[in-house]
Amino acid sequence: MGHTPANDKPRRTRDPEAHRAAILDAARACFTERGYARGTIRDIASRAGVTHGLVMRHFSSKEQLFVAAMPGPRDLADVVAGDPATLPERLALAFVERLDGAGGSDPLIALIRSTASNEEAATALYREMRQRSADAYRAVLDGLDVDVRIELLIAHLIGVTFSRHVIGVGPLAELPADRLVAQLARSVRQILFDQDVAPGSQAAGQDSGR
Amino acid sequence: MGHTPANDKPRRTRDPEAHRAAILDAARACFTERGYARGTIRDIASRAGVTHGLVMRHFSSKEQLFVAAMPGPRDLADVVAGDPATLPERLALAFVERLDGAGGSDPLIALIRSTASNEEAATALYREMRQRSADAYRAVLDGLDVDVRIELLIAHLIGVTFSRHVIGVGPLAELPADRLVAQLARSVRQILFDQDVAPGSQAAGQDSGR
Repeated sequence: MGHTPANDKPRRTRDPEAHRAAILDAARACFTERGYARGTIRDIASRAGVTHGLVMRHFSSKEQLFVAAMPGPRDLADVVAGDPATLPERLALAFVERLDGAGGSDPLIALIRSTASNEEAATALYREMRQRSADAYRAVLDGLDVDVRIELLIAHLIGVTFSRHVIGVGPLAELPADRLVAQLARSVRQILFDQDVAPGSQAAGQDSGR
Repeated sequence: MGHTPANDKPRRTRDPEAHRAAILDAARACFTERGYARGTIRDIASRAGVTHGLVMRHFSSKEQLFVAAMPGPRDLADVVAGDPATLPERLALAFVERLDGAGGSDPLIALIRSTASNEEAATALYREMRQRSADAYRAVLDGLDVDVRIELLIAHLIGVTFSRHVIGVGPLAELPADRLVAQLARSVRQILFDQDVAPGSQAAGQDSGR
């Protein structure tokens, strides 16, 4: 992960943290706008107001930069912290506000768009997102199958993002935010908290709707 | 869609239905293996053992062919037909068997991979898939929000496909088929049959799991 800035150009590295933050902001904007394949280090450096070389000193490859530019684990940890009983509602609200407010520019969208152009980068990004999510959720969830639940939750959110924000037309794209939040809160609750059962043992549970 | 084969080359159009089926099979294999951008009409014609011109007489564009090459609505209608009480289990089983048996080659995977290279083609394909699904489900489901439920269901399955089959590593990719079927049956039941509620009115429902 990212070399420590060398000492040979002190004027450029006086505030390495600020440079790093500017590069990450620029990378986030560039990758979500242009996708992984068409987002270039040169464009990112230019948006961040630094040199190509400085970007490469902070991040050893475009793929590393792509992965590092994802939203911080602190955001998710803040949402997850608190009463587990209301976690689904908090999570659904935070997700809808984040994606609806992103104006088509969010790392989850970049992840989906990157699969065709570069599956390795997409896999690296997905792994990093899963790891960060797992760390946050494990603080409040337990059980043997917590890893599977977390990944099913991520998959559910990816699917909704795909339909609402990547395809962007149809019933799910047009659903008012409050109705999506209500529906997502229920799916999140089911995925995170429903007891695992032996296959087939719950074949005819709830009301069938007709 | 597609023009009726012209009469000027009777030896080529003697069995237009067989040619059409061969072209669709070839397109399905080609697009899922190579993605939308790199799948060419020439390759598809060659796999189907027909000329480039014949492909274009059946399908007026690559995008039309891409959309037409999706799995037939009859497959889904067969799964959906029957007792709605066990629809989630039948659907979950059919989905897992289909995707796990596809060896990485399925139109849902092609859809996800096509978003980066050609968002218009992906949108056209998504619309067609949604329409076919809606037609099948409307035969057994009702309610004002059935369109939203159907699209949430598609989104859920896309998310699982993304993680298990496109990324293909991690807890969801490694989950045994029977456990995935059990989990999916529960999410499908929740998405299709859970009553819609006013936002916030069901904030602390089931057991929270800790």
